[in-house]
Amino acid sequence: MTSVPLTTPQLERLRSHFPYLGEKAYFNYGGQGPMASRAIAATTHAQDYVQKVGPFSGAVNGWLSQEASQTRGAIAQELGTTPDTITLTEDVSVGCNIALWGIDWQPGDRLLMTDCEHQGIIAAVQELQRRFGLEVSICPILDTLNSGDPVAVIQQHLTPKTRLVVLSHILWNTGQVLPLADIVKVCHGFPAREQIRVLVDAAQSVGVLPLNLTTLGADFYAFTGHKWWCGPAGGGGLYVRPQARDNLSPTFIGWRSIMTNAVGDPVSYHSDGRRYEIATSAVPLYAGLREAIALHAQFATAEERYRLICDRSAYLWQRLTDLPTITCLKTSPPEAGLVSFQTNSGKHQSLVQYLEEKKCFVRTILNPNCVRACVHYFTTDSEIDSLVEFISMSLTS
Amino acid sequence: MTSVPLTTPQLERLRSHFPYLGEKAYFNYGGQGPMASRAIAATTHAQDYVQKVGPFSGAVNGWLSQEASQTRGAIAQELGTTPDTITLTEDVSVGCNIALWGIDWQPGDRLLMTDCEHQGIIAAVQELQRRFGLEVSICPILDTLNSGDPVAVIQQHLTPKTRLVVLSHILWNTGQVLPLADIVKVCHGFPAREQIRVLVDAAQSVGVLPLNLTTLGADFYAFTGHKWWCGPAGGGGLYVRPQARDNLSPTFIGWRSIMTNAVGDPVSYHSDGRRYEIATSAVPLYAGLREAIALHAQFATAEERYRLICDRSAYLWQRLTDLPTITCLKTSPPEAGLVSFQTNSGKHQSLVQYLEEKKCFVRTILNPNCVRACVHYFTTDSEIDSLVEFISMSLTS
Repeated sequence: MTSVPLTTPQLERLRSHFPYLGEKAYFNYGGQGPMASRAIAATTHAQDYVQKVGPFSGAVNGWLSQEASQTRGAIAQELGTTPDTITLTEDVSVGCNIALWGIDWQPGDRLLMTDCEHQGIIAAVQELQRRFGLEVSICPILDTLNSGDPVAVIQQHLTPKTRLVVLSHILWNTGQVLPLADIVKVCHGFPAREQIRVLVDAAQSVGVLPLNLTTLGADFYAFTGHKWWCGPAGGGGLYVRPQARDNLSPTFIGWRSIMTNAVGDPVSYHSDGRRYEIATSAVPLYAGLREAIALHAQFATAEERYRLICDRSAYLWQRLTDLPTITCLKTSPPEAGLVSFQTNSGKHQSLVQYLEEKKCFVRTILNPNCVRACVHYFTTDSEIDSLVEFISMSLTS
Repeated sequence: MTSVPLTTPQLERLRSHFPYLGEKAYFNYGGQGPMASRAIAATTHAQDYVQKVGPFSGAVNGWLSQEASQTRGAIAQELGTTPDTITLTEDVSVGCNIALWGIDWQPGDRLLMTDCEHQGIIAAVQELQRRFGLEVSICPILDTLNSGDPVAVIQQHLTPKTRLVVLSHILWNTGQVLPLADIVKVCHGFPAREQIRVLVDAAQSVGVLPLNLTTLGADFYAFTGHKWWCGPAGGGGLYVRPQARDNLSPTFIGWRSIMTNAVGDPVSYHSDGRRYEIATSAVPLYAGLREAIALHAQFATAEERYRLICDRSAYLWQRLTDLPTITCLKTSPPEAGLVSFQTNSGKHQSLVQYLEEKKCFVRTILNPNCVRACVHYFTTDSEIDSLVEFISMSLTS
């Protein structure tokens, strides 16, 4: 193993913030990350503040607006962008839908999507297709996992009528990291009738990759706080590149989207990312998300965390690869925290259930048919060893 | 005062469930209701369960789905309908947007809205108008507060091209209760090209009026749990009448909207209200909402609570009417919990701020320019007396 920036006492101290992490071997960060006690305490404290000082009052209304503003700021700092580009959403899907429905689609417009996108996004795109007469094409990115060039695949599928490319930064099924900056460059430079926009499902990349959205150049980047950032479920966001904002109309609209005049009538959308926010949310969760983000930053930089994630996934990948009845989808060590593998028997659901009984948490993926185990930067060797041991036991029993 | 079904000890016992209610005189139920300790505890307990048993696991995934199902069930029971008609949403606005964007609008279609709708809904309708070339008309309901017939006003504004009527069951500004069943009858019976649908902003009616949505007949009824039900902010819902469901397409779509096949591809929407749900939410809040609903039911029926609300608002209305420098917008006792009034000076914002310093919580409304005080069924005479006293003091100082 390579040298890593967290010492054992540091790692133990970090892990002690997560109340139930020691009781299990947890590998479902790509589904949901555990919350640190202090992140939970921050939401409890915020909830109590609202109850005490309001719940509806001038003081609380000002506080709610500040909480949202601070949260956009904390997110923006992590993502290498400015707060005006951030919209707070309930989850990744809402962020994707804001981008999908905000474009002024014309019949015959084309949308290009990879063959590795999440079912929820696929369904949203299918509805867009039905409503607006779009032409949707799917490009074969799955096949580029171990060889081939995803940039070339996407480039080959662009046409002058393509208006939007929908892809994930890290594929949720295979864990492949797509070369997003290069893809964006190809899309933005393509001689289409209008500059092609790029919508990124960032469910698996935020909290994993060191990110600078300003230089990355993607137009729409939809993420959540409850996976790799270990924030509360129900808090996510959408980045909209300033140059793409004027042409992206709000769709679901409420009081948070707009500015009003002296008699309370709407006069315009907010000039920044608030225009895509809707109405009342569980704002106490925002404090929990900020606390979750701050906790990671206290232990390691984004670059260090990413290096650790790759270090730990390499170890898991190697140990799984060494098992005779296991095939990892990737033929080389992963570039992120997702490790997907198949068993000879293909009975993945029963393996996952068996492991859950042993307090080892992984999940199945249906396409490609596999099991997915996620490691975070604070996953320990002993967790990985225990997972591998239980997998071996299951397969030989 | 008329006899009321809650004895003083019962009222005290009920109020003791709300940790900060005794420290203030609270009249902003129409903004947000306070949470009972046990409702907060239920969300904390649910959050802890997720952390302990998951957060992402087979067990938790089953539990999340059960929680959502139980919550739709609890809401349906309160609203006199079946769980399949209920969609869980973040708030009222999301519910309204689901209905607004789900109709297959054609250019020239007409939408009729009252002149008393909330700014967020107005902005959403304006965006629909821009995108689909709708014709929007606004009918003068405000003028029917003390005389006139809102049913006739709406009827006069229907045309064969009208497809949707948007109105509130209880107007958020004046507190007027619209005769919804009669309005629905007129809309459904009108000889339009397609049966006219009725979308109801129920922000101020759910938790106030005894409701039977099945007999009421409205097509779309959008509500929230965090106002009169005293549930957590971030949990609301939408009722869609079964006969209206097939023609209301989902717009914002995610994994919760759909059913998938053996390889995980979307094959159809859920047949029930889940088709309009999107993706990851703060599910621990659902337990808090159910607990909030259950607490009210433990102390009084919906009919009893509504009677109490009217009793208390009559008392507040009378006491305000007796003040020489105050004019209540209504010339007769309110039919619900909202009491809107004006001062001679018209300096409503400074009055609200003064009252907040005295721990009396009311709010301003900009159109018509007034102050709004809300009473719930557990508002006490002494709270009302204290509000009226501070108002008097403020106006004479």
